[in-house]
Amino acid sequence: MNVLVAGTVALDNVKTPSAYREDLMGGSAAYAAIAASFFSPVRLVSIVGKDFPEQHIETLKARDICTDGIEVSDGESFRWSGEYHEDMNDRTTHSVAINVLEAFDPKLPDHYLDSAVIVLGNMSPKNQLDVIGQVADESYIIADTMDIWIQAAHAELIEVLSKVDLLVLNDSEAKLFMETNNIIVAGKKLLGMGPKHVVIKTGEHGALLFGNEEFFRCGAYPLEVVEDPTGAGDCFLGGFAGHLASLKRAPEFADLRRACIHGTVMASFNCQSFSTERLSALTEADINGRFEEVKGFTHFD
Amino acid sequence: MNVLVAGTVALDNVKTPSAYREDLMGGSAAYAAIAASFFSPVRLVSIVGKDFPEQHIETLKARDICTDGIEVSDGESFRWSGEYHEDMNDRTTHSVAINVLEAFDPKLPDHYLDSAVIVLGNMSPKNQLDVIGQVADESYIIADTMDIWIQAAHAELIEVLSKVDLLVLNDSEAKLFMETNNIIVAGKKLLGMGPKHVVIKTGEHGALLFGNEEFFRCGAYPLEVVEDPTGAGDCFLGGFAGHLASLKRAPEFADLRRACIHGTVMASFNCQSFSTERLSALTEADINGRFEEVKGFTHFD
Repeated sequence: MNVLVAGTVALDNVKTPSAYREDLMGGSAAYAAIAASFFSPVRLVSIVGKDFPEQHIETLKARDICTDGIEVSDGESFRWSGEYHEDMNDRTTHSVAINVLEAFDPKLPDHYLDSAVIVLGNMSPKNQLDVIGQVADESYIIADTMDIWIQAAHAELIEVLSKVDLLVLNDSEAKLFMETNNIIVAGKKLLGMGPKHVVIKTGEHGALLFGNEEFFRCGAYPLEVVEDPTGAGDCFLGGFAGHLASLKRAPEFADLRRACIHGTVMASFNCQSFSTERLSALTEADINGRFEEVKGFTHFD
Repeated sequence: MNVLVAGTVALDNVKTPSAYREDLMGGSAAYAAIAASFFSPVRLVSIVGKDFPEQHIETLKARDICTDGIEVSDGESFRWSGEYHEDMNDRTTHSVAINVLEAFDPKLPDHYLDSAVIVLGNMSPKNQLDVIGQVADESYIIADTMDIWIQAAHAELIEVLSKVDLLVLNDSEAKLFMETNNIIVAGKKLLGMGPKHVVIKTGEHGALLFGNEEFFRCGAYPLEVVEDPTGAGDCFLGGFAGHLASLKRAPEFADLRRACIHGTVMASFNCQSFSTERLSALTEADINGRFEEVKGFTHFD
């Protein structure tokens, strides 16, 4: 079954303690789409400017991602520029240029409308609602969000929550949103806002999956070298959604557990290179091997 | 087999956002000994002042902990006073009165000398070395430490590391000690200092277990209400050591995995009350039930 990924496709400038790279492909949808493409066919919805390099579109197409839903607009592409410090958990955003995103009005091509799993990558809740309005009622909808939307588009975000099957966000955002310092309380309160399940990502620690009656904790893959963590959360989302779409049935809680592990595996590979370079070069054996490694790292009898 | 627990026995004043309690039993050895006592017989080595309340000694004895090694000295007991903030991960120490600890010179009663598992709770590395010098060569030695000793007794701490089987410390301390921002690098570097295995505790996230060829990640038990987290790390140590002593053989890596889970289970119960109140009231069924719950929260197929 197909995954529809909607979100941003960006040009990123990224500085780390060891390197600086410009005009990298970034954006929530680009990362999520490539991660999902290892599990299921992917269709992408986004917007770029006329300046967007053809080579980046080719990177998506090389993963058989359908790019028919990427609008190429007059104006410049969305740009993000940021820097990671010695502690790679600590990031400074130097600049954000919204550019073509300002007027983004996502339109799904007709052949996208039967997608089984919908990924609403990080973008404005308004754009997320635009996509929800176009997809089939029976689709499984997963939404990501971040602090700026919690603060600047609170009402729309609450409407998004009432319409999705799964919400994914990170720990500081979950606590901010639910006004609590306890991550477990945050997860349970978010469940009360509408989603059937909630995933709270905890960065280098992993992720927590909350259901009304169930709970799962997924540990991150241990990495001694983190080259560039940009997009790790989006790759988690992509691996998660790609696995669900591959099931060809409504997911059970055991499926969501496995989806978390696929997400954490894809996020870990993503941290091992700038942009989507490591991801793009993965094989099925790499992914399955790391999935089994995570099992070995977390199971006990 | 027996566990010998050496460390501090203290009087704590603890303030949380919801309560204030005075003259509680605290100290690394008190918490670790009670946690260990649910798995194996425990012998305690510490020092208190003449002011130490008999009721706290009775709490230890009620768990069949041998208190022959608790020296009752002239002077006042070791005291700690601290406050937890709205975010219970955030703690302020208001005062520490070393008192009788100043002259602590641990002397093991003869009948302690055959203990199979030795827990060197958080105390000065000098005192940890004093204990190591008295125990049998074949005993399995576990040491905890904290930031003040990393900074104030670096050379002695390095000597401790060269003599123990397992080091346990928390993530910020591991990074401080090994001068890195990467927790995986910290664990591997600590292994290079002597211990056969290293556990890095990550608070509400759980703990990581490092071996030269192996790795395990244990997720914490999810708690919506944390009453008082004082001593959680010591209880982890106690549950861990108590399980190992119950095996009656040299531990394999699979045993250390289970020991981590027993540690995290005891730490979680500890967070549900002030001092050792919840711990003291536990049953075997409580502990086994939570062990199985953690398995259910972390396993996938």
